[in-house]
Amino acid sequence: MKDYVIMSGTSTKDIALSISKKHNRPLIDINIKKFSDGEIFVKIKENIRGMDVFYFQATPSNDSLIELLLTLDAIKRSSPNSITLIMPYYGYARQDRKTEARTPISAKLVADLIEKVGIDRLVTLDIHSEQIQGFFDSPVDNLYGANIFVNYCKKYDLSNTVIASPDAGGVVRARYFAKKLNINELAIIDKRREKANESEVMNILGNVKEKDIIIIDDMVDTAGTLIKAAKAFKDNGAKSVKACITHGVLSGKALKNISNGSDYLDELIITNSIKQEKTLQNITILDSSNLFSEVIRRLQENRSISSLWK
Amino acid sequence: MKDYVIMSGTSTKDIALSISKKHNRPLIDINIKKFSDGEIFVKIKENIRGMDVFYFQATPSNDSLIELLLTLDAIKRSSPNSITLIMPYYGYARQDRKTEARTPISAKLVADLIEKVGIDRLVTLDIHSEQIQGFFDSPVDNLYGANIFVNYCKKYDLSNTVIASPDAGGVVRARYFAKKLNINELAIIDKRREKANESEVMNILGNVKEKDIIIIDDMVDTAGTLIKAAKAFKDNGAKSVKACITHGVLSGKALKNISNGSDYLDELIITNSIKQEKTLQNITILDSSNLFSEVIRRLQENRSISSLWK
Amino acid sequence: MKDYVIMSGTSTKDIALSISKKHNRPLIDINIKKFSDGEIFVKIKENIRGMDVFYFQATPSNDSLIELLLTLDAIKRSSPNSITLIMPYYGYARQDRKTEARTPISAKLVADLIEKVGIDRLVTLDIHSEQIQGFFDSPVDNLYGANIFVNYCKKYDLSNTVIASPDAGGVVRARYFAKKLNINELAIIDKRREKANESEVMNILGNVKEKDIIIIDDMVDTAGTLIKAAKAFKDNGAKSVKACITHGVLSGKALKNISNGSDYLDELIITNSIKQEKTLQNITILDSSNLFSEVIRRLQENRSISSLWK
Amino acid sequence: MKDYVIMSGTSTKDIALSISKKHNRPLIDINIKKFSDGEIFVKIKENIRGMDVFYFQATPSNDSLIELLLTLDAIKRSSPNSITLIMPYYGYARQDRKTEARTPISAKLVADLIEKVGIDRLVTLDIHSEQIQGFFDSPVDNLYGANIFVNYCKKYDLSNTVIASPDAGGVVRARYFAKKLNINELAIIDKRREKANESEVMNILGNVKEKDIIIIDDMVDTAGTLIKAAKAFKDNGAKSVKACITHGVLSGKALKNISNGSDYLDELIITNSIKQEKTLQNITILDSSNLFSEVIRRLQENRSISSLWK
Amino acid sequence: MKDYVIMSGTSTKDIALSISKKHNRPLIDINIKKFSDGEIFVKIKENIRGMDVFYFQATPSNDSLIELLLTLDAIKRSSPNSITLIMPYYGYARQDRKTEARTPISAKLVADLIEKVGIDRLVTLDIHSEQIQGFFDSPVDNLYGANIFVNYCKKYDLSNTVIASPDAGGVVRARYFAKKLNINELAIIDKRREKANESEVMNILGNVKEKDIIIIDDMVDTAGTLIKAAKAFKDNGAKSVKACITHGVLSGKALKNISNGSDYLDELIITNSIKQEKTLQNITILDSSNLFSEVIRRLQENRSISSLWK
Amino acid sequence: MKDYVIMSGTSTKDIALSISKKHNRPLIDINIKKFSDGEIFVKIKENIRGMDVFYFQATPSNDSLIELLLTLDAIKRSSPNSITLIMPYYGYARQDRKTEARTPISAKLVADLIEKVGIDRLVTLDIHSEQIQGFFDSPVDNLYGANIFVNYCKKYDLSNTVIASPDAGGVVRARYFAKKLNINELAIIDKRREKANESEVMNILGNVKEKDIIIIDDMVDTAGTLIKAAKAFKDNGAKSVKACITHGVLSGKALKNISNGSDYLDELIITNSIKQEKTLQNITILDSSNLFSEVIRRLQENRSISSLWK
Repeated sequence: MKDYVIMSGTSTKDIALSISKKHNRPLIDINIKKFSDGEIFVKIKENIRGMDVFYFQATPSNDSLIELLLTLDAIKRSSPNSITLIMPYYGYARQDRKTEARTPISAKLVADLIEKVGIDRLVTLDIHSEQIQGFFDSPVDNLYGANIFVNYCKKYDLSNTVIASPDAGGVVRARYFAKKLNINELAIIDKRREKANESEVMNILGNVKEKDIIIIDDMVDTAGTLIKAAKAFKDNGAKSVKACITHGVLSGKALKNISNGSDYLDELIITNSIKQEKTLQNITILDSSNLFSEVIRRLQENRSISSLWK
Repeated sequence: MKDYVIMSGTSTKDIALSISKKHNRPLIDINIKKFSDGEIFVKIKENIRGMDVFYFQATPSNDSLIELLLTLDAIKRSSPNSITLIMPYYGYARQDRKTEARTPISAKLVADLIEKVGIDRLVTLDIHSEQIQGFFDSPVDNLYGANIFVNYCKKYDLSNTVIASPDAGGVVRARYFAKKLNINELAIIDKRREKANESEVMNILGNVKEKDIIIIDDMVDTAGTLIKAAKAFKDNGAKSVKACITHGVLSGKALKNISNGSDYLDELIITNSIKQEKTLQNITILDSSNLFSEVIRRLQENRSISSLWK
Repeated sequence: MKDYVIMSGTSTKDIALSISKKHNRPLIDINIKKFSDGEIFVKIKENIRGMDVFYFQATPSNDSLIELLLTLDAIKRSSPNSITLIMPYYGYARQDRKTEARTPISAKLVADLIEKVGIDRLVTLDIHSEQIQGFFDSPVDNLYGANIFVNYCKKYDLSNTVIASPDAGGVVRARYFAKKLNINELAIIDKRREKANESEVMNILGNVKEKDIIIIDDMVDTAGTLIKAAKAFKDNGAKSVKACITHGVLSGKALKNISNGSDYLDELIITNSIKQEKTLQNITILDSSNLFSEVIRRLQENRSISSLWK
Repeated sequence: MKDYVIMSGTSTKDIALSISKKHNRPLIDINIKKFSDGEIFVKIKENIRGMDVFYFQATPSNDSLIELLLTLDAIKRSSPNSITLIMPYYGYARQDRKTEARTPISAKLVADLIEKVGIDRLVTLDIHSEQIQGFFDSPVDNLYGANIFVNYCKKYDLSNTVIASPDAGGVVRARYFAKKLNINELAIIDKRREKANESEVMNILGNVKEKDIIIIDDMVDTAGTLIKAAKAFKDNGAKSVKACITHGVLSGKALKNISNGSDYLDELIITNSIKQEKTLQNITILDSSNLFSEVIRRLQENRSISSLWK
Repeated sequence: MKDYVIMSGTSTKDIALSISKKHNRPLIDINIKKFSDGEIFVKIKENIRGMDVFYFQATPSNDSLIELLLTLDAIKRSSPNSITLIMPYYGYARQDRKTEARTPISAKLVADLIEKVGIDRLVTLDIHSEQIQGFFDSPVDNLYGANIFVNYCKKYDLSNTVIASPDAGGVVRARYFAKKLNINELAIIDKRREKANESEVMNILGNVKEKDIIIIDDMVDTAGTLIKAAKAFKDNGAKSVKACITHGVLSGKALKNISNGSDYLDELIITNSIKQEKTLQNITILDSSNLFSEVIRRLQENRSISSLWK
Repeated sequence: MKDYVIMSGTSTKDIALSISKKHNRPLIDINIKKFSDGEIFVKIKENIRGMDVFYFQATPSNDSLIELLLTLDAIKRSSPNSITLIMPYYGYARQDRKTEARTPISAKLVADLIEKVGIDRLVTLDIHSEQIQGFFDSPVDNLYGANIFVNYCKKYDLSNTVIASPDAGGVVRARYFAKKLNINELAIIDKRREKANESEVMNILGNVKEKDIIIIDDMVDTAGTLIKAAKAFKDNGAKSVKACITHGVLSGKALKNISNGSDYLDELIITNSIKQEKTLQNITILDSSNLFSEVIRRLQENRSISSLWK
């Protein structure tokens, strides 16, 4: 195995520390100062010349994105052998196309900024759309959060379970998850606004009566729509509703919504791809570091990543 | 209005000729020779120095893609003022992400090849996924085939009509089309393979009984799946089934399938984005040149394209 | 004069509005939403196809830098004729070289990010070091804040005045300013730390006794060092101390420091290159919009910018 | 020796298989599907992470060129250590300059497309003009077909032989070949059209009477000119005429021309740089795989390629 | 006609001044200082914002090449509308391929350096090989020196004239020139070294007895080979020998060789593409400025350049 | 330690030879021919495939800069593993910003040219301004000449010594040097021109009376200003004046100035970063090869360079 080091930005310290222990290698220290005017100063505190660098940083905020770019610049100018950027959460992924006239394609812009500084490979987790891989010239390995949830869900009795996608776009993910759990039935939420100025209706396609529902999705932000979907399932006779959602953005009123909606959503299962300052009783946070740890091992041994999913 | 010229590759001669007439400008002649060994030779026969060039070429085949790249190179070396590439059909658009390990992202590769030679703007029609816009650094204007179909469909009695998407991915397109026609109801085909080695089942979500169905999609290739979908609608009680599909690739057994399936699919409506050598009685081909003509006019007058869709 | 539009980011609205009035052209509206998770969404609300765009945005924070990049991307994809980016304040300019091992060159990174999205020309005001012009491939016009201060200072009796630079690096700026005011005498602060762990000594080179001092500099952040310098001048017998400093970053305890140090620093004169939320009685804020307005006029008339300084 | 793998496109399977045997390494399988609409799908069937990849593909057609680019993209996204592209035949090499106004420089375009996807090194065989090396930024090693022909020709009595170039451009190649065979005398064909509308005259420079002629060239396409040249030599008294031509494009009426011209051309010797579907009795096909095999060995051992030719 | 300016480097002052007069436009002054340590300082003395710039500079030396690059950088940073670089002589053009192992492709390097700084179009005169056009991404217009020589030569009685190429590589140029002069007969020099360590033999292909010979070539350097060729023609019975050679490099012993060889070479005709410090009685220098003047006129009027040659 | 080779351009033969001995590795021979017309031809005489190449070349002249670029191109096309360019002297470094309107940023241009050909890392010695590091995308290690001078100066009695900077820009370098020698006192020369057309006055800041002065600077060219500074120190009562200046450009009248000024400047100490053809009695030339040798050793062992300076 080639010589390598683990590094981490401020938003992924826990994951990286856990991996540094699993791999029995010290986490290279980065000094990150934030000045009172908001500018960030980065200094890598140890020599990394000639090393294969695995640098973790999620980008749930503009500050974390700028920190990522500055740190990549510092890494590049420190003469490593290679740079693998591991982004457990890739911000701005939802703006992956021109949704309206004269808007940016923000997910492409983020890719361009990262490629401009320079990486050798990107590892992401449940990136919002797979086409984002094509925004990069470097190889991208996108990991599936489903593989983290499968083990956890197996502890439940799944005999009466239906896997649900909260929109048409997530059907492929839902099928993959269902197959992993040997579940056949799917349900899809079809949001439609029957008339202008009326509120969106949560129309359910598929049979959910007396069923245990597991919603699978990549991202939960304010949780407003999620709670509405859970309510719709319960209103249609579902026995229980859980949600396995990789990225817990949980901004704004999210915790309040989840707390208020606990009659509808029985459990929210997320990963630690985004660091949580606060949490709630009905939120379960799964550790993603085993997955990343295995990926780093395979990369260093030149073994296949895709075979992890078979 | 600035000075401009219309040019066309071999696969879009009809559209370009029609536009050249509408705009009252000669179609600049390109000499395209194909040698017996398969190599293509391109020569632009008139001076285009300082002109705004609108170059049409669809890429339903590898030959047409190479012809496009060689012609762009010839245009670039002829010192035009700007190059607008108009691709009524963008080949390889379906391979817009790494579908399996160690496969190319072909739609990105095509974008890279085009950008490498150099264009100022791309105009496409119903590109397979909107994220492909992000594969380009140049501005991309993607036109909607729905706007061509709307006028045609208005001649029918639509009071009992349901708009259908042949898969989950096409729901956004279906809704846009339904809204343009003031139709509320949608149906979606949910293909699922219940067990390995069993054939795919066409499960219909939504009510189609006694309804007139209009399927909307971006592309029809061998038409096998399309006929199966039409049969499924009829089997579920639909009164009639039409399909509005922008790009008539119609390769392999397509015409045979459509002919044999005429009990299920009453009419197939496509555009002339791809040149058809042969056709059938129940295939209607709509002219897309009005749409492109208006776009060129707006581009030369610095007017908005997006406002076309409002 | 060619057809052009004025646009502005959130941090330069006042300057841009003033210019839009002076040039009698509406300020093109940009819709900038900040979501609860911190992501920014940008939409240019009017068609700018074929226009020469003058886009103002200062970057005193990471949010304003990301907003700048996203907006540039949206502008680029809207097919303007040219993009002139006007940055009254260029953040991260102080990190213009590798100050220590394994640190980024942040000012170059910012330049790379901007060039990657794509501009035709950059206009800045008192950029921290002139070498930053070389970080760009595009033409850069750096304006001098001194030209704003000169008019203001002429209202004072300057017969007994010495121009002071707060460090060796600012001597060139100080001389330029002195020459503009027909002043001969300079003073320089030489900060030195005589022994480790002792605090820095403010050693004054030049004669300041009974003199009116005008400090000139590009940037004031927490104002700690500025007040120490003013105190040193007063301790050495200066009659009055004013400071003309282009960019009022004024972060952290800045206002408190300036307020507490009002015995030493009689007046702080800054420009509106950075928007001030709060201010103090002994702070004067000069409007920079006349300068930018004249530059835009000259750019549109293909006249020289440099001749402004002769 | 470093770890490496052999891969091949559809047009070079025989050469690559032979090399895989010589090097005792399995040929990595690539799944190449051609859909009925003409699009190509590529999948590399085994993990190649960290490997030095030697990928063979000739480009005698547009399909093979697109296949090459798609496969390179798939290789690049599979994280190999390095990519050496081996093109036994480089299509479009004859269009290596602007032959007329407003034509592409096709050989440069092909180079640009390949470099855009990304390779570490290119190996070619008898590329049409050596300047094409300069179209690449990557190192190019151009092998000489003459080295394949020399061994074969030594079986003949060469005491009365003259080496002939079919045009002025091939004189350098002819001299190199002559020197390798210890032959002194050269002949050159000087095609000239004495008056417009008269057919080209094959004027022979050099003495060929009672001589055994060996024509050497890089490419034979329809063989029309070759047979005319052979006839001219025989008409001028040559005893026998053979031709050693690296790339047997042999398109259109080539086989018919060669068959009909067998009185003039006694033997055509080509290499297997292009796969031949059919052949004729007086065509000899030499195997080029020894040459490529030796080159791969030297590359992996960091030994000189150029010393092969001394 | 669009607004444009003429500029010139130190090596093309005469040509550019002549054009500035023909076009009735002042030659924009460039201040070029050479410091005592050899470094060059460039300053464009007038505003060129928004202008189409035609910048002349030949590169017969490393100093002139660096001057060219520095001046292009200064032009680029001065915001012109476009830059047309006109290189009457392109140095390093002979090294247009890897002649031996581990040598640079110098002509490509020069192209890369120029493209890196950035031009919109290149105009050259008789560039050594046409493939060099492909080293550039920008459009290249290569003018033919033959068109300058044709008018001059018409003053001679050409009834008994043979056009001669000094090597196989120049045959295409020789034919073009012959056709322009309505001459049919060509002669070619075939240099061969019969045995190692013997000197090169000048073998003449074609009939020169009692003929007036006009040698045509792109470049004469030390003139050693040229005089040997002239001697060979005279030794074979030629009545007179003239040489029309576009670029008079004339380095080292060139003038001495030409003076000593005046029995063999009756007249050397060159152009002023390279400035001559000294000359001789039997050297005629033709002015190339009419040709360049006409090209600039056509470029500004968007007319074809290639039609000049028909 | 990885396998590596040492190479050198014409201007750094001595340093490189010394290092080749210290590292016990042969200096790879480069054949550099200069033709009579001034063009340079480069050929690397041994195979360097797969090697880490350390290539030395200083650029005190345009010829040496072109030689550097051509040799880099030859190295790149020879397939090394990596290229470390070591420039003991970086020409054009003083033009590191647009000093006046319409001038080039020559130091950036040189960086662009080098990056265009391609290097993996740059090592320089006392580059004129540290911002030049940001002109490169590759990592740059800038060594300090002060570390060479420190050992030499320790042989002197330093108890009464003042370190002097010849201008405001050099104060940081002077402090670093003073600290290395445990000296506290600094002096600065403040050149000012009191009235236009009067000559510059050398105003001394700091106490130099009865002191031993050591001037430290990066570059001495014609030595005119240096001698004036030395005279100013002596005129102000200095006991002795020495100067430690890394790069001895010494062009024009430099030796004459130094010789004539020997009453003022007692000793000039330079390094061999630039090869000296001639020298004088009061010039001491220190060998820089120990420093470069140590750097190469650390690079090959993946050890830190920055820790050299602590």
